[in-house]
Amino acid sequence: MSENWDDKKTQATQWFRDLRDNICAEFEKIETELESEKPVGKFERKPWSRDENEEPNHSGSILKGGGEISLMRGRVFEKVGVNISIVHGNFAPEFAEKIPGAAESKGEFWAAGISLVAHMQSPLVPTVHMNTRMIVTSKGWFGGGADLTPMIENVNDTKDFHAALKACCDKHDPAYYPEYKEWCDKYFYLPHRDEQRGVGGIFYDYKEDDWEKDFTFTKDVGTTFLEIYPQLVRRHMHKTWTDEQRETQLIKRGRYVEYNLLYDRGTQFGLKTGGNTEAILMSMPPEVKWP
Amino acid sequence: MSENWDDKKTQATQWFRDLRDNICAEFEKIETELESEKPVGKFERKPWSRDENEEPNHSGSILKGGGEISLMRGRVFEKVGVNISIVHGNFAPEFAEKIPGAAESKGEFWAAGISLVAHMQSPLVPTVHMNTRMIVTSKGWFGGGADLTPMIENVNDTKDFHAALKACCDKHDPAYYPEYKEWCDKYFYLPHRDEQRGVGGIFYDYKEDDWEKDFTFTKDVGTTFLEIYPQLVRRHMHKTWTDEQRETQLIKRGRYVEYNLLYDRGTQFGLKTGGNTEAILMSMPPEVKWP
Repeated sequence: MSENWDDKKTQATQWFRDLRDNICAEFEKIETELESEKPVGKFERKPWSRDENEEPNHSGSILKGGGEISLMRGRVFEKVGVNISIVHGNFAPEFAEKIPGAAESKGEFWAAGISLVAHMQSPLVPTVHMNTRMIVTSKGWFGGGADLTPMIENVNDTKDFHAALKACCDKHDPAYYPEYKEWCDKYFYLPHRDEQRGVGGIFYDYKEDDWEKDFTFTKDVGTTFLEIYPQLVRRHMHKTWTDEQRETQLIKRGRYVEYNLLYDRGTQFGLKTGGNTEAILMSMPPEVKWP
Repeated sequence: MSENWDDKKTQATQWFRDLRDNICAEFEKIETELESEKPVGKFERKPWSRDENEEPNHSGSILKGGGEISLMRGRVFEKVGVNISIVHGNFAPEFAEKIPGAAESKGEFWAAGISLVAHMQSPLVPTVHMNTRMIVTSKGWFGGGADLTPMIENVNDTKDFHAALKACCDKHDPAYYPEYKEWCDKYFYLPHRDEQRGVGGIFYDYKEDDWEKDFTFTKDVGTTFLEIYPQLVRRHMHKTWTDEQRETQLIKRGRYVEYNLLYDRGTQFGLKTGGNTEAILMSMPPEVKWP
């Protein structure tokens, strides 16, 4: 590796940790703002480590490092997982060839990131996904994004979510938003249903223009998420909903499951290379119906 | 194709249809044997046809033919789907290369079969899957099997289910049962959980020893299923269950979803080649939890 990545890895790791802390604090605050018979949710944090792994796993890869799963089951957030992970190791050749620069690093990689999926009690509050990550092989880059999946579509939510992401992108480069919005629409698509997973957002990957610039943008994506999503939650969480709306929500969640297990690259790659199943599948909704 | 397959295709198709009728009749009979406030289930039958498809779909394959989805939501059977399909067409090269004899037939194929998944109201009644099929490319063969997924394990159910399948296999060849049991165990395995999907059964494929012999065996697998599974249902369906057992069932069903969407060859291949999504995903459980 031609650059010295150590300091960059440290900075990015610290950011993902701080962002996780800020998101968890804000979501716990939201829990206290709703009157309900259900108990107020608090995040439970579960660290995991694979540092004892010296031998290749069933995929032929060696995975070391670890992470922290933060999971909350509450009165507003039915199930929300916020994972951070800092992993490294060696991918087996069949996996390394799918990762930029990993052939040149002989499969060696380092990756850190934050990943979040929120499934809400109220069908009026949209489901959301946010993930940003830094990966280093023989090169280093950022990737990530945020996207919204309303259970019952709401034009204003969609507009405001996209406006926030566009403003975030435009601060850095006016070319970002149209490109990353389109990437998101293409990525979160279920061909077997000919349906989008939700109403989109932004998605970017292999971003290696300039480390400082890309890191600043990645931080902004996280901060923007932390500003806009709580607004959408507070907008709807006090409203009552019908059994029919709940049913619609449970069925729509089935599409989320189908997408994640059939198509999501991170899920498929993670499970195939022997990643942490509990962390990867924290994205599964708490309750789902295929009636 | 060196053999004349027309009469064989007709015979197999008729068998799959007859078996479907007999299974549906037996399951509807079971519905009337339980006292419950819920309405007695009746199968709803939905035919589908793709005969208008002359052009390749998104996968580059041409799929023609059709089938019938029979779906029942009842007081014993929470959701049971029994599909038959008789399809033909041309697989795109990337799919054809995965199917024996399809390179030689230039992608041309014919397939008929029956596929069944039953998700039960009671967590004390095991989930079951049964599928048999005949496929013709430049060669022709049978495949299929049946396997049991208890929500709460029951040693006698497992023993009796396997004993019935073993007796069925042994009538044809004493080598079948050990080979097909092992194939089933290997197939219905979730590597990311290091768990079996259920307690197994038998699985066989590419069976082209002798058409008459293989057809007779395939018919026997269907008949054996129709004898043994209703016994297991009637054994447990009158018993009451606890909320905790229901919860266990809903979580166990999540593993079924994970298996079918992440690993099941038929599901993945079917969805990727543009098969009928509604028919393929009738296997999804009616209600599932990932708490």
